[in-house]
Amino acid sequence: MKMRRSERIVAITKILIDKPYRLFSLSHFTEKFSVAKSTVSEDLAIIKRVLAAEEMGKIETLSGAAGGVRFIPNKASQDIKETVNLLCEELSDAKRILPGGFLYMTDLIFSPELIMEVGKIFATKFADLEVDYIITIETKGIPIALATARAMNLPVVSVRKDTRVTEGSVVSINYVTGSSKKIETMSLSRRALPINSKVVIIDDFMKAGGTAKGMLDLMQEFQAEVLDIGVLMETAEPSEKLVSDYTSLITLEKVDEVKEEVIVKPSSWV
Amino acid sequence: MKMRRSERIVAITKILIDKPYRLFSLSHFTEKFSVAKSTVSEDLAIIKRVLAAEEMGKIETLSGAAGGVRFIPNKASQDIKETVNLLCEELSDAKRILPGGFLYMTDLIFSPELIMEVGKIFATKFADLEVDYIITIETKGIPIALATARAMNLPVVSVRKDTRVTEGSVVSINYVTGSSKKIETMSLSRRALPINSKVVIIDDFMKAGGTAKGMLDLMQEFQAEVLDIGVLMETAEPSEKLVSDYTSLITLEKVDEVKEEVIVKPSSWV
Repeated sequence: MKMRRSERIVAITKILIDKPYRLFSLSHFTEKFSVAKSTVSEDLAIIKRVLAAEEMGKIETLSGAAGGVRFIPNKASQDIKETVNLLCEELSDAKRILPGGFLYMTDLIFSPELIMEVGKIFATKFADLEVDYIITIETKGIPIALATARAMNLPVVSVRKDTRVTEGSVVSINYVTGSSKKIETMSLSRRALPINSKVVIIDDFMKAGGTAKGMLDLMQEFQAEVLDIGVLMETAEPSEKLVSDYTSLITLEKVDEVKEEVIVKPSSWV
Repeated sequence: MKMRRSERIVAITKILIDKPYRLFSLSHFTEKFSVAKSTVSEDLAIIKRVLAAEEMGKIETLSGAAGGVRFIPNKASQDIKETVNLLCEELSDAKRILPGGFLYMTDLIFSPELIMEVGKIFATKFADLEVDYIITIETKGIPIALATARAMNLPVVSVRKDTRVTEGSVVSINYVTGSSKKIETMSLSRRALPINSKVVIIDDFMKAGGTAKGMLDLMQEFQAEVLDIGVLMETAEPSEKLVSDYTSLITLEKVDEVKEEVIVKPSSWV
């Protein structure tokens, strides 16, 4: 069927938004809708203008033979603030206090709608890096890594916490958890990550940074370049972490089991 | 700014598609765009017609005081066939054969763009069920469960394979893996799942069905009603599984380590 502009725009918006960072050639649309290139260009200009005005993300046009158009789901800084504030509010609930002064946040990490927004925040933060893979460690890092990877159109590689890996030849390293000083093992299948990849590490939580340090060491075994580390929540103490470059969204200032008090704040850059 | 129809339609399409199954009242749009209800209704009619014609999902309008409009990301049966065929093609590669006759599919499960489509397939299959939670078991079930939950706007609850759960009071059960007859443990925090919930179980792989049977038993401890089980891949043998009602997308007919041959097929319903 021959579509009118308002109709074509629905379909083009859907196609672009469904696959963030995926580059579509203009001819993809001219063929699909049997219209001239100039018509598609005008459609795209409208979509671009509206998404920019409404701060719903960016339409990027790359020129040249390998060019095309793609959707980049950048979040506006006000929108980032709102998502992080919402998370802080949820996490301030004293009912979330777990024995040992930990904070229950599994339910938030496993809420797809919310965690997709967290993924978009990391994608916005890392938009200028040339990343090949998002690396995480099981279990609670996985949803955040997937959401980030989804927003950046990248694959995820998940490091395992045991050595029962049935995936061919495996690299295992021992690492010391920063806070409790326990020796743990993490493993990654050789085939999971090509050498010399550029990666970003994503995890849910950082206290002393022992796990992150372990992952940096593991990445060295794969000659990977770690461009950044993103964690959903870090603890204010210890302020000296075992890794220096990382980005957290939320800082856990204090959990008082006796007074039943939790203090969480957006991290300073938010 | 006052928008034209073609502009408004970009923004409305984005808002609806971004949050599948989330119900938006008509006044949400009349206020946001300062237009009459009849204008928004016409916008929505165009979006609905195009998405239906292009088989890109469904716009559903619920009338009444608690009514509104929502996007349901149903996949057309031809589209389901294409996604499953693509997966089968990828999985037929003899390089994927692992020792013991297993098949390496971690990379596919951790490809967000692909696994989002798998999630939409399960969401389409389970669209008529009144589901409260998607249940999965770490690690490889998680991406598929999140994709399904994202398409259905539901939370995920992830069962753990160990008992080192730091999340308050925990229910643990032992189960026997169907194929290797090993006794394993799975655990779930009491606070993770309210009793009497209606759930769908999602996992990556089913051989004899021991893990699925274990999850059914665990769900009984939470008095949950299991409405269906979805697995990405099942093995043709044993044909008698330990659970009777489940939906798989792909059937693994044969892995021959010597001849380096893999035979995978779309499951019969696809």
